[in-house]
Amino acid sequence: MSEQKIIVVGGSAAGPKAAARAKRLDESADVTLLQKAPELSMASCGYPYYIGGNFDERSALLATPTGVVRDEAFFAAAKGVKARVNTEVTAIDRDNKTVAFTNSATGESGTLPYDKLVLCTGATPRRPPIPGIDLEGVRGLSEMRDADKLRELRDSGQVNNAVIVGGGLIGIEVCEALADSGMKVDVVEMLPQLLLFLDWEIAKLVERHVGSKGVTVHTENGVSEFVGENGKLTGVKLKDGTIIPCEVAVVSIGVVPNVSLAKEAGLEIGVTGAVAVDEHMRTSDPSIYAAGDCVEINNRITGKKAFAPYGDLANLEARVVADNMILGDKAVFPGTINSGICKVFDLSAGSTGLSEKRAIDEGYEVVTATNASMDKPGFMGAKLLVSKMVADAKTGRILGFQCVGPGEVNRQVAEAAMAVMNGNTVWDIGVADLPYAPPFSLAIDHFITTAHILGNKIDGRMAGISNADVKKLVDSGETPFILDVRAPAEFEEMRLGVGEKLIPLGKLRNALDELPQDKDAEIITFCKISMRGYEAQRVLEANGWTNVKVMEGGIMAWPFAIQR
Amino acid sequence: MSEQKIIVVGGSAAGPKAAARAKRLDESADVTLLQKAPELSMASCGYPYYIGGNFDERSALLATPTGVVRDEAFFAAAKGVKARVNTEVTAIDRDNKTVAFTNSATGESGTLPYDKLVLCTGATPRRPPIPGIDLEGVRGLSEMRDADKLRELRDSGQVNNAVIVGGGLIGIEVCEALADSGMKVDVVEMLPQLLLFLDWEIAKLVERHVGSKGVTVHTENGVSEFVGENGKLTGVKLKDGTIIPCEVAVVSIGVVPNVSLAKEAGLEIGVTGAVAVDEHMRTSDPSIYAAGDCVEINNRITGKKAFAPYGDLANLEARVVADNMILGDKAVFPGTINSGICKVFDLSAGSTGLSEKRAIDEGYEVVTATNASMDKPGFMGAKLLVSKMVADAKTGRILGFQCVGPGEVNRQVAEAAMAVMNGNTVWDIGVADLPYAPPFSLAIDHFITTAHILGNKIDGRMAGISNADVKKLVDSGETPFILDVRAPAEFEEMRLGVGEKLIPLGKLRNALDELPQDKDAEIITFCKISMRGYEAQRVLEANGWTNVKVMEGGIMAWPFAIQR
Repeated sequence: MSEQKIIVVGGSAAGPKAAARAKRLDESADVTLLQKAPELSMASCGYPYYIGGNFDERSALLATPTGVVRDEAFFAAAKGVKARVNTEVTAIDRDNKTVAFTNSATGESGTLPYDKLVLCTGATPRRPPIPGIDLEGVRGLSEMRDADKLRELRDSGQVNNAVIVGGGLIGIEVCEALADSGMKVDVVEMLPQLLLFLDWEIAKLVERHVGSKGVTVHTENGVSEFVGENGKLTGVKLKDGTIIPCEVAVVSIGVVPNVSLAKEAGLEIGVTGAVAVDEHMRTSDPSIYAAGDCVEINNRITGKKAFAPYGDLANLEARVVADNMILGDKAVFPGTINSGICKVFDLSAGSTGLSEKRAIDEGYEVVTATNASMDKPGFMGAKLLVSKMVADAKTGRILGFQCVGPGEVNRQVAEAAMAVMNGNTVWDIGVADLPYAPPFSLAIDHFITTAHILGNKIDGRMAGISNADVKKLVDSGETPFILDVRAPAEFEEMRLGVGEKLIPLGKLRNALDELPQDKDAEIITFCKISMRGYEAQRVLEANGWTNVKVMEGGIMAWPFAIQR
Repeated sequence: MSEQKIIVVGGSAAGPKAAARAKRLDESADVTLLQKAPELSMASCGYPYYIGGNFDERSALLATPTGVVRDEAFFAAAKGVKARVNTEVTAIDRDNKTVAFTNSATGESGTLPYDKLVLCTGATPRRPPIPGIDLEGVRGLSEMRDADKLRELRDSGQVNNAVIVGGGLIGIEVCEALADSGMKVDVVEMLPQLLLFLDWEIAKLVERHVGSKGVTVHTENGVSEFVGENGKLTGVKLKDGTIIPCEVAVVSIGVVPNVSLAKEAGLEIGVTGAVAVDEHMRTSDPSIYAAGDCVEINNRITGKKAFAPYGDLANLEARVVADNMILGDKAVFPGTINSGICKVFDLSAGSTGLSEKRAIDEGYEVVTATNASMDKPGFMGAKLLVSKMVADAKTGRILGFQCVGPGEVNRQVAEAAMAVMNGNTVWDIGVADLPYAPPFSLAIDHFITTAHILGNKIDGRMAGISNADVKKLVDSGETPFILDVRAPAEFEEMRLGVGEKLIPLGKLRNALDELPQDKDAEIITFCKISMRGYEAQRVLEANGWTNVKVMEGGIMAWPFAIQR
């Protein structure tokens, strides 16, 4: 364990982490970090917040918490790592254990020997072959210079209209940044929804909120052409023929792993198209490791291979790489459960594990519950959370959890991620001892209540129907008897407006003659969040009705509500 | 399973939950809820926030989220539960399965038959036998009328000085409420620290913050006498002779379970003095269940019996009781891990599992790590978190976690609670996939970083020393060589002031001759949060020094720092 030469290719997230940790584990190691871009260790997840003006100091993206810029000198002095920027690795000679590089600033080129090599080559945004994509004004957001340009456009005040192509996580973050900067923003998404990690009806709540901020969302639509004049973008033409005038378009439709270096060196590429690694993050060459957005890892739930280009995983993977290079291949990276969260204007939206759709696609037999309730007691300034829990129908194991709302989504999704990783069932969570005090949560935490609801469904006590399915019934004209058990004042304030009947829960036991007297008639109950809706279901079933369902999440989770 | 008579004794938290859930599970059940107090289903955890003026509507403590007061009529109409207030149960006749009651408002008394009985008799604040405790102005905080009285005193503007006796969770919440109302507050605590669920050095950070708000904290002190004139409190005399003039004293030194009813009925009382129940929450009489602040449950970590009077557990226990009464004794309540959290002015303080002290008392061989770092990236308005993780030295299993700071403590403690419940090790958490985006967390979440630090310690790579132990060394005059590796500007802003030497990390490799040349000399390194301190340790060890320790948590966790 002495004086081994370690070369790390890539200086964004995984690379610097692997290099610095390796040096900390073995001060005698000779660690070199080769970075193609001019910057090192960029906080690229922060680009949208820089663009949106959340902060003004560009250097904050490139500096330590105490304000020291992470440049070559910093890596040399503080980390003992030889970092070289503007330095692209062009080839790996595995037989002789060398890499070839060229420096785009100085023109220098050469080779460097290694004992261990780490590939952290990252990923590149997809650029679809659409006419006009090379016009000035059509951009991605992956490099510091993209962030610089978009920030410059924001500060210029000269951009009135922007189009975001792609309604995924980064697309939505950039949408908010530009809309907050005063631009009129349109979002174009090929799929029927934004944020594919959410199920459709949860994503619709996000879409409604984005729309309330003046953003126009075009789902099930795509870009057929970027339109321009004199090489400059003037508009985006959609597949349905609509033309949206705009000065800027940001294309954000996912990324592809940068694998050409690995491929040309003959390293194994995985089924997802990213670099294949074993559980120790080692490629098919035992002297070469890989981490970050260029690798393929395991999905911890399905056991299948996954491409999961997230900044947090890049750091954790890189740490495992360093441990294995220096201490022997003992550390294991178990993979991802696809935990994620984002801010969407006044909402947060997060998810972990599998969505219902994804779980069904993977072959699981699932049950789900939707819970719309507050994050704290009302007297503490409660805010709404709408969650959906997905569990395996046979075992009650929690497979996934989504949460959206102005309330504290962060804690909810973190709890759920821990539950999914640990294979907890809805019954495990139903008796969990989580921290409680009124400033922080309800006495029964929202996450626990969601598990209770799902437990009631699995045990056959609660028959639920999703609001999406209720909407379908209504749209088809087959409207069943819909029973709103809220108070009259709540009904005045907001209602479904689909012909529902109002009987407050407290009056229900004495108003059974106002219900369909055919005891097999379909009745759908709901309230604000469908807790009272569930109580109404229990009352009706006890009185002989056989086909009563609760509209899950109540009116607060209904994306089509009429507000008065 | 039909028309069984269920009587629930106690109408605060556990009682209403057990009654309502039992009725939902079996509409044919005849459920009666007997409540000694005039109110039902009080949100008693909210009392400090009502007293402190966080909200003004007293009814919010007694009403549903939609504003319906939970009175007898509400329970009858919405829950199908016959609730009776002002109704104290005075005896249980187990042979004949009846309870005797008296109504303090009407004078009515009688007996009621039951098939199943649930005891949710709660707990009563300790009232120490101190001279003057019955003076007007000496109060507890357990009933609605206590909250009413303290709120009235606040609103009167006539109280200038208040003394809180007891620096536990409720004491601190009331302290904040009264201080926020403009009173000068003193807190008196017999132990050497506030908030006993925290270890001493973490509690000192809270104490410093409380002090910064103008509150005087007297630790290792007690009340010898409540002093008064004409039956009214005028001051509190401490054991050390100090007299604190005050118009109000709130005594909050813990609660004792109300077990007299159970005891007189011959039910088994547990080792903690609370009602003994099995894992199904059933007492020694199979027809009688118990839940809430009157019962004894399991500690899930130690396996020992615990008295854990928390509002969230009361609700979860009561749900298990209802399930078992109606569906047969299948549901299990596994117990507590002592998760808790509270707001302390601008800080939050939370804990789950065992503190270091508690773990050692329980016979564990433990390792701990302290981590002071931010909750989010600096450019997102980061706030500090100071955490301490306690793990079993043999297995790395996380036994406990404490977190204090202005940052988002809530998510951290919730994650830790899930880890402790699941028996996760520091290595499990070191590769956890938790939700990340800059508005919500660091790329490597604070909780994960804490596990990394502790893993480094267990693996022998990092030798830590607590700030408490450094302070002891300094106070004893045996000051070792203390090395601050921060930047000069940071040193100017805040320093330990104990003769430490400043060598910024980036200069360290070229300044080794400024260190003690005896390679066995004790050197203690630190920085702002001791991440750089750890890097410095690695550098020094690689250069032959053998006795280098990192002061954990850095200067941000040092409660004795000199601010300039």
